[in-house]
Amino acid sequence: MKNPPSLDQLIAALKVLPGVGPKSAQRMAFHLLQRDKGGAQRLARALDAALGQVIHCERCNTFSETPLCNVCADPGRRQDLLCVVEMPADLLMLEQAKCYDGLYFVLMGRVSPMEGIGPRDVNLDKLMVRALDGVVAEVVIATNFTAEGEVTAHMVGELLKERGLTVTRIARGMPVGGELEFIDPGTLAQAVFERRRLA
Amino acid sequence: MKNPPSLDQLIAALKVLPGVGPKSAQRMAFHLLQRDKGGAQRLARALDAALGQVIHCERCNTFSETPLCNVCADPGRRQDLLCVVEMPADLLMLEQAKCYDGLYFVLMGRVSPMEGIGPRDVNLDKLMVRALDGVVAEVVIATNFTAEGEVTAHMVGELLKERGLTVTRIARGMPVGGELEFIDPGTLAQAVFERRRLA
Ligand SMILES: [Zn+2]
Ligand SMILES: [Zn+2]
Repeated sequence: MKNPPSLDQLIAALKVLPGVGPKSAQRMAFHLLQRDKGGAQRLARALDAALGQVIHCERCNTFSETPLCNVCADPGRRQDLLCVVEMPADLLMLEQAKCYDGLYFVLMGRVSPMEGIGPRDVNLDKLMVRALDGVVAEVVIATNFTAEGEVTAHMVGELLKERGLTVTRIARGMPVGGELEFIDPGTLAQAVFERRRLA
Repeated sequence: MKNPPSLDQLIAALKVLPGVGPKSAQRMAFHLLQRDKGGAQRLARALDAALGQVIHCERCNTFSETPLCNVCADPGRRQDLLCVVEMPADLLMLEQAKCYDGLYFVLMGRVSPMEGIGPRDVNLDKLMVRALDGVVAEVVIATNFTAEGEVTAHMVGELLKERGLTVTRIARGMPVGGELEFIDPGTLAQAVFERRRLA
């Protein structure tokens, strides 16, 4: 006695989702078939639609349904500032923060020697071409402050400095509203080390 | 600046999966579009295939691609023993434990007043018809030993005893709070062997 083949295939297919193992794939398949066939149908259609329509913006590499994404197509943005982020979610966060009016480049990942993700896998070639267009003057690196994000920042920074560009890194320090008592020691040490003179 | 519509729709569609919130839905969508388009395609096809092919066994209510599942279609099984389980995964576990040669009924859930899941939602009507076919002499209740599983066992037991059937419960060799899906086959086999008649 086994599951019917199409059910086993669905369970196997669900395991492509990050963080989904055999047990939760089975739970998901049962849930969809038993309680939410409409949801399963919408998911299948959404996968097809996204696969058919989502491409990468020619300039910034983020997800887009048009050759140029909204940000890149906006003539009001500063053309001499280029911010490098790991993922589209990071770009969205920066836009939400309304703190930046330049353009972006989305690596779609970060360099991770541990996981075998090298510079080729994070579009560094495409970034070089983009950053060296003669208009960009400063590249702001806004990769995450994780081990991989820092390795990526270092690698990107070295490559761009070699070519004569100004390269900056968004600041590390205390979060707004953060309390010393509850911050991790590493962040606190960094905040002290990178202290700035009050004007 | 937002995600392209088809990407947002995929993220929304992924949230139908149990245990998947907005953040992990976004991570899943990015992963599929960026690193595993083949997997996304297979998932869409597997959803369609399962939706098109998986039905419920006419006799035992488990998932099946044929009107009768393999167990129900097997003339070698004891026809006078009917084991009631919550989910197809529980049936598979019992088969793996090789401790039982009767037939099954799969509720496809359990009664849960807390979640508003009543007797109608777990196919008790269908179970009554099945159990009262005149051939079944003993119903072995093998719902989980969780609060909901026990409520379900009690409800099923009362209904069947009223109709004059012998009703047994697999033994509490199961750890309290344990779920069939996660138990080792030896313990499960013991619990079936020690099943006791409900007073
Ligand atoms: Zn763009
Ligand atoms: Zn069956």
